[in-house]
Amino acid sequence: MRIVVLNGPNLNRLGRRQPEIYGSTTLDDIEEDLRKDARRLGVDIDFLQSNHEGALIDRVHQAADDGDAVIINPGGLTHTSVALRDALAEVADGPGFVEVHLSNIHAREAFRHHSYLSPIARGVIAGLGAQGYSMAMDYLARQESSRA
Amino acid sequence: MRIVVLNGPNLNRLGRRQPEIYGSTTLDDIEEDLRKDARRLGVDIDFLQSNHEGALIDRVHQAADDGDAVIINPGGLTHTSVALRDALAEVADGPGFVEVHLSNIHAREAFRHHSYLSPIARGVIAGLGAQGYSMAMDYLARQESSRA
Amino acid sequence: MRIVVLNGPNLNRLGRRQPEIYGSTTLDDIEEDLRKDARRLGVDIDFLQSNHEGALIDRVHQAADDGDAVIINPGGLTHTSVALRDALAEVADGPGFVEVHLSNIHAREAFRHHSYLSPIARGVIAGLGAQGYSMAMDYLARQESSRA
Amino acid sequence: MRIVVLNGPNLNRLGRRQPEIYGSTTLDDIEEDLRKDARRLGVDIDFLQSNHEGALIDRVHQAADDGDAVIINPGGLTHTSVALRDALAEVADGPGFVEVHLSNIHAREAFRHHSYLSPIARGVIAGLGAQGYSMAMDYLARQESSRA
Amino acid sequence: MRIVVLNGPNLNRLGRRQPEIYGSTTLDDIEEDLRKDARRLGVDIDFLQSNHEGALIDRVHQAADDGDAVIINPGGLTHTSVALRDALAEVADGPGFVEVHLSNIHAREAFRHHSYLSPIARGVIAGLGAQGYSMAMDYLARQESSRA
Amino acid sequence: MRIVVLNGPNLNRLGRRQPEIYGSTTLDDIEEDLRKDARRLGVDIDFLQSNHEGALIDRVHQAADDGDAVIINPGGLTHTSVALRDALAEVADGPGFVEVHLSNIHAREAFRHHSYLSPIARGVIAGLGAQGYSMAMDYLARQESSRA
Amino acid sequence: MRIVVLNGPNLNRLGRRQPEIYGSTTLDDIEEDLRKDARRLGVDIDFLQSNHEGALIDRVHQAADDGDAVIINPGGLTHTSVALRDALAEVADGPGFVEVHLSNIHAREAFRHHSYLSPIARGVIAGLGAQGYSMAMDYLARQESSRA
Amino acid sequence: MRIVVLNGPNLNRLGRRQPEIYGSTTLDDIEEDLRKDARRLGVDIDFLQSNHEGALIDRVHQAADDGDAVIINPGGLTHTSVALRDALAEVADGPGFVEVHLSNIHAREAFRHHSYLSPIARGVIAGLGAQGYSMAMDYLARQESSRA
Amino acid sequence: MRIVVLNGPNLNRLGRRQPEIYGSTTLDDIEEDLRKDARRLGVDIDFLQSNHEGALIDRVHQAADDGDAVIINPGGLTHTSVALRDALAEVADGPGFVEVHLSNIHAREAFRHHSYLSPIARGVIAGLGAQGYSMAMDYLARQESSRA
Amino acid sequence: MRIVVLNGPNLNRLGRRQPEIYGSTTLDDIEEDLRKDARRLGVDIDFLQSNHEGALIDRVHQAADDGDAVIINPGGLTHTSVALRDALAEVADGPGFVEVHLSNIHAREAFRHHSYLSPIARGVIAGLGAQGYSMAMDYLARQESSRA
Amino acid sequence: MRIVVLNGPNLNRLGRRQPEIYGSTTLDDIEEDLRKDARRLGVDIDFLQSNHEGALIDRVHQAADDGDAVIINPGGLTHTSVALRDALAEVADGPGFVEVHLSNIHAREAFRHHSYLSPIARGVIAGLGAQGYSMAMDYLARQESSRA
Amino acid sequence: MRIVVLNGPNLNRLGRRQPEIYGSTTLDDIEEDLRKDARRLGVDIDFLQSNHEGALIDRVHQAADDGDAVIINPGGLTHTSVALRDALAEVADGPGFVEVHLSNIHAREAFRHHSYLSPIARGVIAGLGAQGYSMAMDYLARQESSRA
Repeated sequence: MRIVVLNGPNLNRLGRRQPEIYGSTTLDDIEEDLRKDARRLGVDIDFLQSNHEGALIDRVHQAADDGDAVIINPGGLTHTSVALRDALAEVADGPGFVEVHLSNIHAREAFRHHSYLSPIARGVIAGLGAQGYSMAMDYLARQESSRA
Repeated sequence: MRIVVLNGPNLNRLGRRQPEIYGSTTLDDIEEDLRKDARRLGVDIDFLQSNHEGALIDRVHQAADDGDAVIINPGGLTHTSVALRDALAEVADGPGFVEVHLSNIHAREAFRHHSYLSPIARGVIAGLGAQGYSMAMDYLARQESSRA
Repeated sequence: MRIVVLNGPNLNRLGRRQPEIYGSTTLDDIEEDLRKDARRLGVDIDFLQSNHEGALIDRVHQAADDGDAVIINPGGLTHTSVALRDALAEVADGPGFVEVHLSNIHAREAFRHHSYLSPIARGVIAGLGAQGYSMAMDYLARQESSRA
Repeated sequence: MRIVVLNGPNLNRLGRRQPEIYGSTTLDDIEEDLRKDARRLGVDIDFLQSNHEGALIDRVHQAADDGDAVIINPGGLTHTSVALRDALAEVADGPGFVEVHLSNIHAREAFRHHSYLSPIARGVIAGLGAQGYSMAMDYLARQESSRA
Repeated sequence: MRIVVLNGPNLNRLGRRQPEIYGSTTLDDIEEDLRKDARRLGVDIDFLQSNHEGALIDRVHQAADDGDAVIINPGGLTHTSVALRDALAEVADGPGFVEVHLSNIHAREAFRHHSYLSPIARGVIAGLGAQGYSMAMDYLARQESSRA
Repeated sequence: MRIVVLNGPNLNRLGRRQPEIYGSTTLDDIEEDLRKDARRLGVDIDFLQSNHEGALIDRVHQAADDGDAVIINPGGLTHTSVALRDALAEVADGPGFVEVHLSNIHAREAFRHHSYLSPIARGVIAGLGAQGYSMAMDYLARQESSRA
Repeated sequence: MRIVVLNGPNLNRLGRRQPEIYGSTTLDDIEEDLRKDARRLGVDIDFLQSNHEGALIDRVHQAADDGDAVIINPGGLTHTSVALRDALAEVADGPGFVEVHLSNIHAREAFRHHSYLSPIARGVIAGLGAQGYSMAMDYLARQESSRA
Repeated sequence: MRIVVLNGPNLNRLGRRQPEIYGSTTLDDIEEDLRKDARRLGVDIDFLQSNHEGALIDRVHQAADDGDAVIINPGGLTHTSVALRDALAEVADGPGFVEVHLSNIHAREAFRHHSYLSPIARGVIAGLGAQGYSMAMDYLARQESSRA
Repeated sequence: MRIVVLNGPNLNRLGRRQPEIYGSTTLDDIEEDLRKDARRLGVDIDFLQSNHEGALIDRVHQAADDGDAVIINPGGLTHTSVALRDALAEVADGPGFVEVHLSNIHAREAFRHHSYLSPIARGVIAGLGAQGYSMAMDYLARQESSRA
Repeated sequence: MRIVVLNGPNLNRLGRRQPEIYGSTTLDDIEEDLRKDARRLGVDIDFLQSNHEGALIDRVHQAADDGDAVIINPGGLTHTSVALRDALAEVADGPGFVEVHLSNIHAREAFRHHSYLSPIARGVIAGLGAQGYSMAMDYLARQESSRA
Repeated sequence: MRIVVLNGPNLNRLGRRQPEIYGSTTLDDIEEDLRKDARRLGVDIDFLQSNHEGALIDRVHQAADDGDAVIINPGGLTHTSVALRDALAEVADGPGFVEVHLSNIHAREAFRHHSYLSPIARGVIAGLGAQGYSMAMDYLARQESSRA
Repeated sequence: MRIVVLNGPNLNRLGRRQPEIYGSTTLDDIEEDLRKDARRLGVDIDFLQSNHEGALIDRVHQAADDGDAVIINPGGLTHTSVALRDALAEVADGPGFVEVHLSNIHAREAFRHHSYLSPIARGVIAGLGAQGYSMAMDYLARQESSRA
């Protein structure tokens, strides 16, 4: 089983942008930790961060072709991208995806309270920081093994 | 006269994604059929599918420069892209464009009922499957010849 | 196979009312052309234009009893008639209906952007003038023959 | 005392249209049963079904002139007809009317949740099938006798 | 010059329905008075009251053909009929129409505050009782003579 | 078969509170009458009135365990309690429940026009006074016997 | 009997501002004509135009003290002034006021469709130009004499 | 450190109610698993399930007094209880609370998309089943130890 | 005359919860002060604080039976409880109730700006701290004596 | 310490306008009573009533310069004047202001439920008649002395 | 060419009111600087600050008569005054006006995001402090010279 | 100090697209002029126009790393891109950015009235054509020098 971890626009800035909201951990730190988790869980893992909606969609298509599960923190695209949702709909019909947000989006501006992705996600984790990715991986791995 | 057929995000997945809604025809099949229609109607035809909004906009600009008509299935960008609308406004002032949707967007989620493109399109065809593209080409070709 | 072509309120005025929007073609001209298309496609065709919602509903019921497909340009009833929608629901369960608008309703007043009929139509064609009826017939005939 | 039972657009299709929602009982069956109830209760009864809003309004006026109570299942006009409401306002000032829906309109599309008639009805019965008419008659008859 | 005076659903009930709002004058009384006004102003006059939307639309079409001005009290159709508006659009392009309401619709239920007809009327008179018709005729006649 | 009749907050005040809306009949009177109806119909009957949402939910759970049908007048909780709806969803999957309101909630304040329970009820009776409970019982008993 | 004719902000510009909407008649012309009408009808008349909301309110208070009827064209205050409405409420309880608009406010921007004054006016006249004032005076005078 | 696990209305029905949404695991099963997790993490744990909003609020107050962290699945109160939010605000100022939903509330009815609690929660986990509680405990324990 | 002072959910936390908003005064302090005021005014006084909506409703019913006036700070139930409003409607028909809020609810979250109780209260006092209760008592006592 | 008591448009009409809502007390009576209260509390007091928004704003500026507290009954400006709010924002940063309404604005038309001033007021008193001013003064004086 | 610089309610308070938003510069300072700019640009300049909407409207009328361009910071009237907009419409048809806001109104309360004036302004400058006035003058002067 | 001038989708079409709105100046012309301004002001300047949201975000990140100020005309992304806003939030915390629109977006379609960027911009200039860029640069340079 492989899990593709996608991070959308601005998440390459982690540790620099608004550290009072997102903390000082960088995306490299998070990916390093997730690699360890993946080894422990015995799953393959792959990463992509991009500020380009189209690049994320292309990667989701490949995941759908490969039958991979997806963990996605869509950043600002959460609230605006129907195209990303449509791409993820294929994954939702297969092993599924989990939506992760580092901060609690419900405690922020009103336009961040609606997500185009949530209605087709397996589940959503928000506000638990980098641990959210790790929880999502744990969930997808366990779900996979119970299916096997 | 040339007609540029544009397909937005996820339409490269035709035949794989949600076949109960979109059928098993692939985009290659559709383009093949349209090429035949084009020969019959005596018009040139050109294709682009992209998951990148920017790439679609670039192509629309070129069409505007060349005085081409456009057929566009904007996928998820239908509901979210003002930038694509602004690009198409140039075409609308010239030979015009027709908006095509394979499925009946009015029978799906509420957020799919509004299109940023429709108010400046020549017309809109929704729910008639791949035949919609062919009808759009027929319309644009006939309009052209009545102008000539 | 028979196709019933229904035209709602004010469409008897075609060619006289707002020619800058609808052109100078009359409803008689359109019906004449459709009769030719029907002969070519080998389908029966029948027409009704009425300014009376009840008369249109009665005719839809008869179509449902006869197993006919329907092409409807509902005029102003598009935006206000739940009763017409309920009548067409029977046709939708059978050979289906296509909704046609001569003008691009999305380019006009906001109250013309919502249709009670679209969610249960096979498809919708707007803004392509009288050609829209002919495309709808083509679609319904092809669908029928692929079913046969 | 006389009770006029009115049925609006499409209710002549009962037993044929969407039987999974409305069952296979026809309007004739229902009227037959109501005639029996009326005999038992000692009240006169009269019926009209019409797909024409104007015909229903005309009949309501006559009922108002005769001092009759009304049971009405307005079908799709429930949600769209201010004119029918205005006609029934005269009956509401007299012996009153009861609004009946065969299906539970609150379990269906959002646009069916609002009724122009309910605010001036004596009461509303929805979702209890054909029994709803019979309950309404019972209520009106009992109310009459308690007044007498 | 001819002026067609149209009265929509329930206005045949004038003098009987809710006299505390509409007074005891009947529609016959009003038409009698208007006939006198017409003679004084030297214009032809014609009347139609109908509870059928379709009949009103048919009459508007004839007025458009004859080049007549229209005074209309649309009753409950004021708030719900796009089809009636579309018919009147032809008259609006010609000698025009005036919308009259006996009662002050802005002092009643919220759903009576919006009129589909007002945006294309020459003007609107509400709340001045039967005098409103007479004022409307005066306006249309004077406008005509200033054009002549 | 057993039918549980639930009355929510303030219905213990019947006969005292706003008698111009609810009449002078007390809840005891109503329950007495329903007991007679139950005997006639050969069904068991049980009652609970509570001003505590939690107590009503507890009772609904017991009904779900016992396979009982429910008649409920939820009082003010109608418009505010998702928790009560969730409890009743179990009953809705079984023998079902009917929602009863003594007064016509559609003729009162706007916030009383929406019910969280109606979409999952078998049906709704409003405005027919205490007779509403009796009609609901009749409906549930007849439905039960037709199933037996 | 005295009638106070009030004109709100910008109506001193009549004849200069947007003549394509308001015509070339000045406020002086209108007042001159109204003076003649007043003599014919045997009523006293008084005028105030002001761009100051407070000055209009003060004048309304005086009218209320004197028992005068009011004709008011509130200009832009129509849509924004609760204070002016509250002042006119006193007049509404007495001889009443008529609201007049030279242009058809329903054919203009959406924010001009709502009036704070209309719900408490005797009636509203819009779109009939300067004739509207004269009709309003006629109405108020006739009403007065029928009361006397 | 102690963690209080609160479950709101209807969660005592887990395993019985809508198993297609919530699975067949009971609340006892979940609490048993959490007890094991707690032992592993070296934290105290305490449970309360109640259908009574007041009882939940009382328990939250005690947690605030004791300086305990809270995990809460508020059931239907999620969407309706400001009082519960106000109680949890005290906990939010201290060790904080995590909101857990077994199902993905964003994939269900629109009224379930808004939570009064989320804006003041540390984070929210939805759709990951019983694992959600365990993740929440893990998060709160780790946060505590990083504070110590 | 007796005045019943009711405090809803979380007001037992006064002095502990969000002291920057509510100050350090406890509910006991407030009740002590009110007892003194009551003695001075010569009225009886009784208190209840509860986190249970049902308990508050029960107490309101007793007050209605005893003919007592009520001062209520409904806490979070202000914005969500139709049931509490319905109970207080009986008091409103008698000696009436005053709604008190310690903080200025209009300066807080949007969902706190609407109260179900205010429309039937004698009056509302918000933002004046504990003095608000005392003012309410003063008002009710003075009103009583002017009635006596 | 000085307290400036401001009354907005139409409050000079107290005792004459809608006495069934506002009672027969005049503004002079109220000011007389407040003068006595001021003497008792040992504070200076000053009054202004104006129907001119600008005059009220000018007076608020002076109060801000003098460091005075303000009691304001803004009348109709409550719901429409951002300019008055902006002026009062300076006072809010100093000794503050209390908003007073004689009637219970929440029991009246919907447009009276929103106040531009409340979010920056110390507090709001509505529906307690002329006593509201006196309570507001009491609050401001006590607050001042606790600060001194 | 002359440019009239208008400042609405509360802008006389500049330098005193909310200096954290508007800085310590006074309106006199700003006008002094603008006078210098005017000399440099060779245009006449005139100033008015008023807290009275009517006074501003009067001044706009004079500007319209004189053919002057206008720079206006309407303060709180931005969001509430249709009357001011109507006055400025005359200027908009001539040399035009520029709307200036010292602070960034889009970063403040929601009710400050809508301006009645912007749709008819030449342009809008917000958030650039006193420099905004100077930029507006520069723009109007350059536009004038390019026209000359 | 360096200022980065960003232009979003379609701004490469300046001079060709809708010249009646945007004039015939090309983007090259504008950049040439800005280069001159930059030399005069002694600041470095850099340009990017892209139709790709991702490319713009990448460039904003670099500006944030370099401590550059930004001038941005986001084109259609103004109204739809939360991701671009999130990127600019880093710049907003530093030297800041100014949002520029060539046309007056408030005079165009309703969907162009809302900007995701404005609330975090230093300021916004709309409708002043290419001069807007130059004003923005002037502002940022002056701000910088006052900081130095």
